[in-house]
Amino acid sequence: MLKKTGDQSIVFEDPVSILCTASTVGPKEGEGPLASYFDVVHEDIMVGEDSWEKAESTMAKDNFGLVLHKSGLNKKSIDFVLSGDLSNQLTGSTFGVRDLELPFLGIFGACSTFGEGIGLGSILIDGGFAHYVMSGASSHFCAAEKQFRFPLELGTQRPLTSSWTVTGHGAAILAKSGPAPYITSFTVGKIIDMGITDANNMGAAMAPAAVDTLTAHFKDTGRNPDYYDMILTGDLGYVGHEIVSRMMTQEGYTMGSNYSDCGIEIFDREKQDTHSGGSGCACSAVTFSGYLYQQMKKGQLNKILLVPTGALMSPTSVQQNETIPGVAHAVAIENTKGDN
Amino acid sequence: MLKKTGDQSIVFEDPVSILCTASTVGPKEGEGPLASYFDVVHEDIMVGEDSWEKAESTMAKDNFGLVLHKSGLNKKSIDFVLSGDLSNQLTGSTFGVRDLELPFLGIFGACSTFGEGIGLGSILIDGGFAHYVMSGASSHFCAAEKQFRFPLELGTQRPLTSSWTVTGHGAAILAKSGPAPYITSFTVGKIIDMGITDANNMGAAMAPAAVDTLTAHFKDTGRNPDYYDMILTGDLGYVGHEIVSRMMTQEGYTMGSNYSDCGIEIFDREKQDTHSGGSGCACSAVTFSGYLYQQMKKGQLNKILLVPTGALMSPTSVQQNETIPGVAHAVAIENTKGDN
Repeated sequence: MLKKTGDQSIVFEDPVSILCTASTVGPKEGEGPLASYFDVVHEDIMVGEDSWEKAESTMAKDNFGLVLHKSGLNKKSIDFVLSGDLSNQLTGSTFGVRDLELPFLGIFGACSTFGEGIGLGSILIDGGFAHYVMSGASSHFCAAEKQFRFPLELGTQRPLTSSWTVTGHGAAILAKSGPAPYITSFTVGKIIDMGITDANNMGAAMAPAAVDTLTAHFKDTGRNPDYYDMILTGDLGYVGHEIVSRMMTQEGYTMGSNYSDCGIEIFDREKQDTHSGGSGCACSAVTFSGYLYQQMKKGQLNKILLVPTGALMSPTSVQQNETIPGVAHAVAIENTKGDN
Repeated sequence: MLKKTGDQSIVFEDPVSILCTASTVGPKEGEGPLASYFDVVHEDIMVGEDSWEKAESTMAKDNFGLVLHKSGLNKKSIDFVLSGDLSNQLTGSTFGVRDLELPFLGIFGACSTFGEGIGLGSILIDGGFAHYVMSGASSHFCAAEKQFRFPLELGTQRPLTSSWTVTGHGAAILAKSGPAPYITSFTVGKIIDMGITDANNMGAAMAPAAVDTLTAHFKDTGRNPDYYDMILTGDLGYVGHEIVSRMMTQEGYTMGSNYSDCGIEIFDREKQDTHSGGSGCACSAVTFSGYLYQQMKKGQLNKILLVPTGALMSPTSVQQNETIPGVAHAVAIENTKGDN
């Protein structure tokens, strides 16, 4: 019997425990509304390194070390590590993971990477290939601005549609058996391209992909938006959140007050000058690994749908006048094992 | 019962059929010794596009279309597409896949990507999550040189240790049931860094990772190198091939005349001025999808171990004086379902 339901969703036969999480962030995230939920807040955005890229790798390395420590597991118990980030050739992840000496699978879905990682990790466990999988994703504001937009030293003015790449690393250890919360389903996104070309409006570029994946998730599972205590897209910010709400209405689904976006949650729009909100692989990774995971542990939230969203452009593709395709993966996380 | 054997290997309960493959290459590969095995040879390295990057995406798009056509399957039958490449943010893959409108999982292992893709694809099928998975990888000589080394227009002299990035795309459709050959096991590599810093000597940077994965594969499965008709690393070329042979002897394994490297097979060293040999994601992807797959279909080869190898550096990491870590994934492909 195929464990795939509908066109895009996998409903896990034996939902996968999220044994523990760890979150590390930079100074700006440490001044935001979710500050108290993060394990480590670096006051120095360089994290003591001499480049932004090395700072990102060091955060990845240390945060993977932290989640391993929190789990109480021996390193050798981890069957596979899945990791990805925004840096060219995933160096944030590969240099962060190399000292672990564990079987490694590199993944990329731009800022949807954290969703892809915990989804594929659940597949490895539910499929009988692993007992424990460690998965994470990172981004770094300065490294991302340098790579995707303008040298920071230029002091380029950011338009109001732009979002602020989150500096941080979020990680989770998934387990075959363990306490709640559980990953109960994984809806794999298609690449959706509606022709947006503005690299300073990622929310608009990714929103149609989020809508496509949300719609597929609801169709495949027979659920409605109000099934969940909270539905969180990854990093659409205020601009993309509004587009999703409107487009979902056209699709026949009402996204109520239980719909938010990690990019909205992580910064204080008024005080932090972050315009449309937070973005980057770390946006959904640390919002989940810090805030949402703890809310689920306390029972404040019992059923969430995390939908990390990614914009699949590169500086080269933008220079070559390509449009910006998006992708989004939806992961249902629940305190009970669901309908299974 | 865990389907993982030893530290790093998955032995598939029900080996996965490689239903069909397709291979598309550029002009230089079309002048090499494997020319007659490729489905499509482009005489124009631009593939009719106005940039090298678009040429790579177009090859990916067309070659995925070709493998789908060869399979006789309806597009909607494909449960998931896995794809990756060397371009920043995987644009070779994402722009190649976007028109397919199929659930997409982006993967990255530098030039080991094809191995990661067919390995993860087999996991999706053997785990019961998919009936059909399409997987592929690409690279483009000009796009890779521009991105990783020097502008081609400079005419920089290439050292003898350097390899020639293969222009092409290789793709396979994996199926739950179907004819031989079958993917029987998948050994997931660790990141191995022996401190090599020369971005013109990828063979030396990746060889220790290949040795680590080969050793793990033989330990985990209880097999010896002579079990296979052919063992092929991905793109170590002559330099890396020699290092692997020597290091494997130190590990207690004799790599005999059945050990070659896709980078050695794909070009004629004497006539084609390719120095250490071929490299790039497409090197193992097209050598397998073209040459090896047909040799297996004819029964000329019945048991092969394909070990695509990747160098996990970026231009930024090289500029920042980082070493070059490597990774290699081993995929056993056999005409019988093996010991299972």
